[in-house]
Amino acid sequence: MASPEFAALLAALGRPQADADLGIQARRAGFERLADSLLPLDDDVRCQPMMIGGVACDGISAGSAGPRRTIVFLHGGGYTVGSPRTHRDLLGRLSRAAGAFVVAPDYRLAPEHPFPAALEDAVQVYRTLLSLGVPPSGLLVAGDSAGGGLALSLLLTARDAGLPSPAGAMLISPWTDLTLSGASLDENAACDPLVQRRGAAASVQRYIGAAGDAAHPLVSPLFADLRGLAPLFIQVGLAEALRDDALRLAERANQAGVDVELDQWPEMIHIWPFFAKLIPEGRGAIDRLARFARARVRGPID
Amino acid sequence: MASPEFAALLAALGRPQADADLGIQARRAGFERLADSLLPLDDDVRCQPMMIGGVACDGISAGSAGPRRTIVFLHGGGYTVGSPRTHRDLLGRLSRAAGAFVVAPDYRLAPEHPFPAALEDAVQVYRTLLSLGVPPSGLLVAGDSAGGGLALSLLLTARDAGLPSPAGAMLISPWTDLTLSGASLDENAACDPLVQRRGAAASVQRYIGAAGDAAHPLVSPLFADLRGLAPLFIQVGLAEALRDDALRLAERANQAGVDVELDQWPEMIHIWPFFAKLIPEGRGAIDRLARFARARVRGPID
Repeated sequence: MASPEFAALLAALGRPQADADLGIQARRAGFERLADSLLPLDDDVRCQPMMIGGVACDGISAGSAGPRRTIVFLHGGGYTVGSPRTHRDLLGRLSRAAGAFVVAPDYRLAPEHPFPAALEDAVQVYRTLLSLGVPPSGLLVAGDSAGGGLALSLLLTARDAGLPSPAGAMLISPWTDLTLSGASLDENAACDPLVQRRGAAASVQRYIGAAGDAAHPLVSPLFADLRGLAPLFIQVGLAEALRDDALRLAERANQAGVDVELDQWPEMIHIWPFFAKLIPEGRGAIDRLARFARARVRGPID
Repeated sequence: MASPEFAALLAALGRPQADADLGIQARRAGFERLADSLLPLDDDVRCQPMMIGGVACDGISAGSAGPRRTIVFLHGGGYTVGSPRTHRDLLGRLSRAAGAFVVAPDYRLAPEHPFPAALEDAVQVYRTLLSLGVPPSGLLVAGDSAGGGLALSLLLTARDAGLPSPAGAMLISPWTDLTLSGASLDENAACDPLVQRRGAAASVQRYIGAAGDAAHPLVSPLFADLRGLAPLFIQVGLAEALRDDALRLAERANQAGVDVELDQWPEMIHIWPFFAKLIPEGRGAIDRLARFARARVRGPID
């Protein structure tokens, strides 16, 4: 049974909206306003601007100081909206729960910067953290929605470039199939107010352009050769429109010999941990992410 | 016997100049021009701008890629001039020889930003690298001249703040006594064209202001309680005006139980490794710095 708070959130989010009709600037501003008003930041969350690998990042930490795990977190927003600011509350909670310093790249967005700009930025941040001396055994990558797909493409690119793997990856409601072939896009259309086929298709077009290949393995990492990737923690709500992006990824990764942990939440919708401030299910989900992070990177790094 | 190249460098540097008569902007620009013209950068040196702990830094690497040691290098210039750019050739050589990624903070300069601005910047960079997950066992701090004193004050501040120690510190011709009480300031006045009492006194005034205390242990770390510091590698030319800043530091650190290695170069002047492109003694000095770095931080960090 979902919590009363979740029911209230669903009601507040309202009926699915055809938000593809809005201009991209209005959608970006709306997301920032939503996050600002709905998710005011806790007092103990510290944010500092950084420039890592030529990419502006927010460095986020909460809770006690000291040597920590490092999480590179790629925010969601269909590759077209969102920022480290929209995700600050989630990132602060993750930092606190996992005992981690979170580096959130403000990667370039489409349509101004289509594929592979976002991936290039993510790879540059990852590569530069390694150059700086951060041990891969202390590094995790993570992301929600499009950021989850991007995190997976980052793992693939790092593997193919011969870079060391991180200790693990945490994918929250990852968007892994930009061909939009998952049955859940239709099956859960009525119960997930956050993702609709029409809006998703508009984001795909913005991200890859008219001539782009949505099935490219770095655009839709669901279709990539997944062998040799770091352990994956995949979190999905079974009421979400992108349910099958996560379930099929878990199956394919498992078949490819990747260590996969699939964390399924029956009634939850897309990126419910984003709303952790409002709903206990979000807080519970973050606790599980943190447990994975602590198991993969044990103890302080020093 | 010093090399013919060193003799030529000495001749080119000319007679000691009372450069305190120049305005600070002219001195800064002159230093940048000197470095640009005298020390063109080798092709394999990569520089990237970074923002670490709110401080602009250059990230410098040369030679082969891969996980490395990390050196926080604080450039010299009397706390009033100099930048990561003026020191690029030295930093590139150090990166290549030591197998290290060098982070060079562009810390704030006096008189616009007197003590403790530079130290605050250095500490912020150090603290943030630790937050990012760089293990202290893979970190070295270093600096030349005023940057050597600053590196020492960074160690003291980190110790007193309960931060973990780096694996070691490399101090090249460190300026550790801003009361200017070293006998070598006069004894070597005629043979060191780079440091003169009058210019040094002007830098002290700019750094601490008219009412400042030159004997403050973080201004003149020679006078600090040195117990518990990381191993020090101190490099000094016996013909330099700041010879006694290094020799007295080595003695005091040794008495305080610090592991000290003193590397003395009989005929060399202030910061001769800075001129490594021009003189074999500079290249030899960098080889010894690299040997210390490799001994203190063994093997790749991963």
